[in-house]
Amino acid sequence: MENRVSRPNVLLITCDQWRGDCLSAAGHPVVKTPHVDALAAEGVLFQRHYGGAAPCSPARACLYTGLYQMNNRVCRNGSPLDARHGNIALSARAVGYDPTLFGYTDVAPGPRRLAAGDPRLRSYEGVLPGFSVRQLLPEHQKQWLSWLRTQGIDTSTGIPGIHRPAGKQGKVGDDVSNAPPVYSKDQTPAAFLAGEFIRWLGEQEQAAPWFGHISFISPHPPFIVPQPHNTMYDPADGPAFRRAANWQAEAQSHPYLAYDLGLQKRTKFVPGAEGKVRDWSEENFRRIRVLYYGMISELDAQLGRIWEALKAAGSWDDTVVVLTSDHAEMMGDHFMLGKGGFFDASYHIPLIVRDPRRTEAAGASIDRFTEAVDVFPTLLDLIGAAPEPHLDGRSLASWLDGEEPADWRDAAHWEFDFRSVADGEAERHFGIGSRDCNLAVLRTEAFKYVHFGGGLPPLLFDLSKDPDELSNVAHDPAYLPVRVELAEKMLTWRANHLDQSLALAELTKDGVVGHVSKTAGSRE
Amino acid sequence: MENRVSRPNVLLITCDQWRGDCLSAAGHPVVKTPHVDALAAEGVLFQRHYGGAAPCSPARACLYTGLYQMNNRVCRNGSPLDARHGNIALSARAVGYDPTLFGYTDVAPGPRRLAAGDPRLRSYEGVLPGFSVRQLLPEHQKQWLSWLRTQGIDTSTGIPGIHRPAGKQGKVGDDVSNAPPVYSKDQTPAAFLAGEFIRWLGEQEQAAPWFGHISFISPHPPFIVPQPHNTMYDPADGPAFRRAANWQAEAQSHPYLAYDLGLQKRTKFVPGAEGKVRDWSEENFRRIRVLYYGMISELDAQLGRIWEALKAAGSWDDTVVVLTSDHAEMMGDHFMLGKGGFFDASYHIPLIVRDPRRTEAAGASIDRFTEAVDVFPTLLDLIGAAPEPHLDGRSLASWLDGEEPADWRDAAHWEFDFRSVADGEAERHFGIGSRDCNLAVLRTEAFKYVHFGGGLPPLLFDLSKDPDELSNVAHDPAYLPVRVELAEKMLTWRANHLDQSLALAELTKDGVVGHVSKTAGSRE
Repeated sequence: MENRVSRPNVLLITCDQWRGDCLSAAGHPVVKTPHVDALAAEGVLFQRHYGGAAPCSPARACLYTGLYQMNNRVCRNGSPLDARHGNIALSARAVGYDPTLFGYTDVAPGPRRLAAGDPRLRSYEGVLPGFSVRQLLPEHQKQWLSWLRTQGIDTSTGIPGIHRPAGKQGKVGDDVSNAPPVYSKDQTPAAFLAGEFIRWLGEQEQAAPWFGHISFISPHPPFIVPQPHNTMYDPADGPAFRRAANWQAEAQSHPYLAYDLGLQKRTKFVPGAEGKVRDWSEENFRRIRVLYYGMISELDAQLGRIWEALKAAGSWDDTVVVLTSDHAEMMGDHFMLGKGGFFDASYHIPLIVRDPRRTEAAGASIDRFTEAVDVFPTLLDLIGAAPEPHLDGRSLASWLDGEEPADWRDAAHWEFDFRSVADGEAERHFGIGSRDCNLAVLRTEAFKYVHFGGGLPPLLFDLSKDPDELSNVAHDPAYLPVRVELAEKMLTWRANHLDQSLALAELTKDGVVGHVSKTAGSRE
Repeated sequence: MENRVSRPNVLLITCDQWRGDCLSAAGHPVVKTPHVDALAAEGVLFQRHYGGAAPCSPARACLYTGLYQMNNRVCRNGSPLDARHGNIALSARAVGYDPTLFGYTDVAPGPRRLAAGDPRLRSYEGVLPGFSVRQLLPEHQKQWLSWLRTQGIDTSTGIPGIHRPAGKQGKVGDDVSNAPPVYSKDQTPAAFLAGEFIRWLGEQEQAAPWFGHISFISPHPPFIVPQPHNTMYDPADGPAFRRAANWQAEAQSHPYLAYDLGLQKRTKFVPGAEGKVRDWSEENFRRIRVLYYGMISELDAQLGRIWEALKAAGSWDDTVVVLTSDHAEMMGDHFMLGKGGFFDASYHIPLIVRDPRRTEAAGASIDRFTEAVDVFPTLLDLIGAAPEPHLDGRSLASWLDGEEPADWRDAAHWEFDFRSVADGEAERHFGIGSRDCNLAVLRTEAFKYVHFGGGLPPLLFDLSKDPDELSNVAHDPAYLPVRVELAEKMLTWRANHLDQSLALAELTKDGVVGHVSKTAGSRE
């Protein structure tokens, strides 16, 4: 690293819907992820890492701003992120990087400073302020489709048709197929983005540290994967689904579950399929699951390709790599697919942090609770910029040196807002206002407590007896002391994380004392 | 009102430290407030009205922004108010008023857009953005002192010396004196501000509706009042103090009370007095209380003078009058003076709203819970501007028509933040961080629940059995169901009042749907 600015390269990789248990490094009995495992062997695997919210935009807002949803206020895909908040790209830029995006960030811009006709106001898939865009890849995937066409692939089926088994554009039967799509394993959206990143990598100067952010959509519906990953796993293998005897029992356990189970349509996960997810047989959930596992292995192969390219470019030993996911995937647990709600299955995600300069704890697995909001302060710490004290997350850098930070949290927290401002669906269903369509989760080693807005009943799970979260004991008098303890612990969490961006400052006769957040807004 | 813009005049009067029970209109057995009562007879008295925070700056932030402390984040005197928030003056200005200030607003400006050397950054006594200042009167009271000098008063004792009994600048004995100061009842700070307002009133054109805000510091320490108000009340009269057998019992009941009782010095309330407030005898608390009552009557007389001037100017029937206070005053309850903490005595304040166009409910007393955050949306409603939906407060205008708004709240809420950013006193005392130095109160008809940050224990008072808030039943197993109910009710309140300024908007393919708050920041 001679003649080099003394900063590492940074490679921040996000996947969209990857469960935290679906890594072989995390002990999964079936899924094989050799390249993720190789990264974990050189870095630290945070085994109890949780997303801060769902779906993508709220999850990314937590990741990029280091602020909980209660502060960043990105409630849904399409909720604007207030320009007043700092973020990972602006901070990287402030110390000299040109943070460069491959994929998407799903950040809807604040509307106040844009003209009403600005097309950025017609999409939730905006780019986080601070990023240079090298290769955008939003939901319409047009950039990938045109690349496929240059390789002679017929893309006339469009999106999502191209994500159906080759030649099967008609009606889809009840049974999930593992037939491959028209594109090959070297032509997936992940392969496209990996290739574009590798090409860009080849353009970088050795003397100038770079900051790349690859945002893979995989693993994510539609669930389909090319050979050989489509047949890599056997539906008979894998852990039992975490669920009640039938979906009706789940629906009866809480009004939110009844609502969510009623919403989930198969076609979102398998284009063309009719009916509701909950009505699929166990066999079909297992068939979908092997496709999901296959998509993970397909992505793992692309990660391997990226590791190889970094090594070939001589950059591997100068590059901090952070690998994580937006949120997880129910993948059949509780008869659901996708994300949202309160179950661990939707929020427990992978996090590996690997810094070639901090190898003390290489290969370690951390089982303390870490959260998406920790990633921003961690990256700041690793690039030598002090995290601002108003952030909700904390740096994980000490773990890389084999040290546990003082007073570490003893619970994970996440929030889920199910308001539907534009169509009002949730509001109508529950007969409550948008402000009330929300839940918050406090998950300790032993218990999970879920508080709902709008008068919906709370949930309490005794995880030592009920690890699958099936039996709500909130209304069991024996659990009243636990319920009050956790409700008050959640109040403490709320109070501690009220917006601190100016509240840690005080005007005195000697001027401003304390911390004034350097928000984006303040620089405009 | 012919040839007149069809808006009323607005007169917003704040007093600083006026208890909600200290009006004869509210049934106080001793205090006489004929002019307040006259206003109440033409308007509506909100008998269960509560300040949102204490001391002045946090209280005013709730009043002026319509946002709870959890959103406006003015935690202490000197906490900057983020320029992103709208407020009562900017909104009045937006519809054509020139809102004009007499007194002070105690709003510390956001530091991001000011040069580091700007003197506004050296005081917590800034002016709320949007106000024109006609007569500032901050804590140093220099503007009043120079006015006194023009009347031949010797002001060489300065502040606070001039608020001591005439000729008594030396040591003060243990007993509180009711001897008058050098200035007369016609020369008080309130008389000065009332006179300046009346002079300004005479300059107004009939055709142009005006918006005046008089901010009286009285009743507020130092406790002293000229003749005849200093002898108007008998220390033997008045209700029993609400307190335990002795201050030690209060201190033992909660660590916050022990801390607060230990901090209170007599000299802040009676300049020159030595020792701590808590050690004063009941007799001396009673002597102070008659001074406080006298200050209220002194202020009431000035209000009468203002009513008369409005009538003489022909404006009375065109003028909306809102009379309220920042917060209340312990006035001997629990062996304390001043404000802060969690007791009703510190937050129960007067609110009278009188609109000459809405007389349906004239003279009514409302006993539902109303809050400081309701004043801004109420005033917007009365001047014909729709309150924005992201505000925490709700308009009270319906009550003026004799109608109860739908789904009215069944509890009052307030917050108190005791962080000390600059000197770190509270943080050191409790061994907790600034983020944790806070409490929140939920007060229903039957119970009061207080949640503390930083691991300090909660409080629960059964108000039907214990109206004086002396017996904490939070740890009584019989009250566990109530405690969990109220803790969860507070969680619901927190969740409902997360910042909604952009969260009620959604970017869709048709553009922005929903509500985007028109904050001050957006106009800059």
